[in-house]
Amino acid sequence: MLLNDISDLIERLKKRGARRVVLQFPEGLKRRSAEMVAALKEAGFEVVVSGDPCYGACDLALENLGSSDVLVHFGHAPVDEQPKVIFEPWAVAFDVTVLENALPFLRGTTLGLVTTVQHVGLIPAMITFLQSRGITCTVGEGSRRTPFPGQVLGCSFAAARASGADEILFVGTGLFHPTGIAIATRARVIALDPLSGTAQEVRGDILMRRRFAVIEKARGARTVGIIVSTKSGQKREKLAERLVRLSDNAVIVTMREVTPDELLNLGFACYVNTACPRLAYDDQVRFPVPVLSPQEYEILCGTRTWDEYAIDEIV
Amino acid sequence: MLLNDISDLIERLKKRGARRVVLQFPEGLKRRSAEMVAALKEAGFEVVVSGDPCYGACDLALENLGSSDVLVHFGHAPVDEQPKVIFEPWAVAFDVTVLENALPFLRGTTLGLVTTVQHVGLIPAMITFLQSRGITCTVGEGSRRTPFPGQVLGCSFAAARASGADEILFVGTGLFHPTGIAIATRARVIALDPLSGTAQEVRGDILMRRRFAVIEKARGARTVGIIVSTKSGQKREKLAERLVRLSDNAVIVTMREVTPDELLNLGFACYVNTACPRLAYDDQVRFPVPVLSPQEYEILCGTRTWDEYAIDEIV
Repeated sequence: MLLNDISDLIERLKKRGARRVVLQFPEGLKRRSAEMVAALKEAGFEVVVSGDPCYGACDLALENLGSSDVLVHFGHAPVDEQPKVIFEPWAVAFDVTVLENALPFLRGTTLGLVTTVQHVGLIPAMITFLQSRGITCTVGEGSRRTPFPGQVLGCSFAAARASGADEILFVGTGLFHPTGIAIATRARVIALDPLSGTAQEVRGDILMRRRFAVIEKARGARTVGIIVSTKSGQKREKLAERLVRLSDNAVIVTMREVTPDELLNLGFACYVNTACPRLAYDDQVRFPVPVLSPQEYEILCGTRTWDEYAIDEIV
Repeated sequence: MLLNDISDLIERLKKRGARRVVLQFPEGLKRRSAEMVAALKEAGFEVVVSGDPCYGACDLALENLGSSDVLVHFGHAPVDEQPKVIFEPWAVAFDVTVLENALPFLRGTTLGLVTTVQHVGLIPAMITFLQSRGITCTVGEGSRRTPFPGQVLGCSFAAARASGADEILFVGTGLFHPTGIAIATRARVIALDPLSGTAQEVRGDILMRRRFAVIEKARGARTVGIIVSTKSGQKREKLAERLVRLSDNAVIVTMREVTPDELLNLGFACYVNTACPRLAYDDQVRFPVPVLSPQEYEILCGTRTWDEYAIDEIV
């Protein structure tokens, strides 16, 4: 499978007249870099590897393009237009009959179907399988950041919303995406991990209760750092400028990687995260102080009510 | 003391007509950022804080200058010219009579005197004190990266070399600088920690024995990552290009922060560090595989002999 990928990639690189190429891999694929380097050197390219952490197409190693012709970004679909970047998918296949495991959890016979980028190629097969079980799927168009129909990101649930369904099946790993979908759509959400075969209903209220507690913990914070990412697809400066004006105690803090160590070193009493939305929700247990989403900070400052709680998405 | 610092800084910022200012602190001073932000906001500036890890003037948050007028970098002297950066020293005072503790370790009566940037202001007082004890000091000019006479960095021992002395007194914290000085100059080196008062002779051969073992461990590595930093003052691309040509197994890997996690994720059998020289020497115990200095890699590849072993410096 790898060699197929590479022959196609070599074709695209040659078409562009690339001579020197930077490769960027997400954390789960970094181990494959040495074999990919060897194959591309064999094909006549000069190769450089980006060694920084990478969790999405929002985090492109563009600083390498000064000394290279093309950046090949593996494993993610583009979240924005980038002329000198090739996005090289890394599909992960599974047997679609595993969807059988989700059937006992469904209430209706029409379903919104969403998944992550590595499985979008299987959406037609998933639809056919579900149809054979009497279930009709709707697959919504995504946003600018999710180019494939039915594709969701941890920061964009537009395809779930666009499905218009009351019941949504998320096929993918982990509970963050389906939890976000549940809060964003207020639909009933079933999550199926296609690799382990585990299916379950996922509700948003557990996360929301936890977040309510974090907001309360942030009350009275004398110093607030409004985090702005320096990563290409996470830099929400306008949002941060608006939030920093909500309190005299707030200041903008720029960061590349938002880590517990750096938040501790800086010593602010509370942070607001405008970088990757998952950070605030997923990593709170690792952080030394409350890290709020933009919407949660608005609730803290009284410019949004709790009933208007919304999950943070990058649009 | 802080308020003195700030009134001077405000003066310099106003002279430049700065309106929006980014503050960057080394790890040990980050905790002071909130109070500095408050004081500069009080003085009428818009303020942003750089929250990324920072270990030297080689690591300037220049990416922030797109949206701000000036970067104020605290705690370090400049290692290169930067028109939009103000370097704001952060002197750490001590009672120079603590040098008494070093006297029992000295053999001669002439001495090369070196220290780190936070103590360079005390060099005249240290000279006077040592003179009163019958010891004559020479203070060498530094390199382009160490603008103060007698100043050394972990990556530049030029001032120690320029002292021309057979016996050198290093006044500062930790054993890395004096070890580097011992290897770089082959002089006898005494280290005095002015805060704890501890004095000791520091030899280079212990580090060199350890490094010999690391080189041997790297023999036979099938994949070699030549690390190039993306930080402003650590980016040694030409050196890396030369090193990568020494072996077909080698590839350039760009990194901002060189961390054990990322080296493990990438999965190379050996790395060569052209970023901050201290990383290879100081952090080997934390790294999963051998991380060689450029000179050590040349020894491994047979283009340098062990007798020509040299400590890595950035010139």
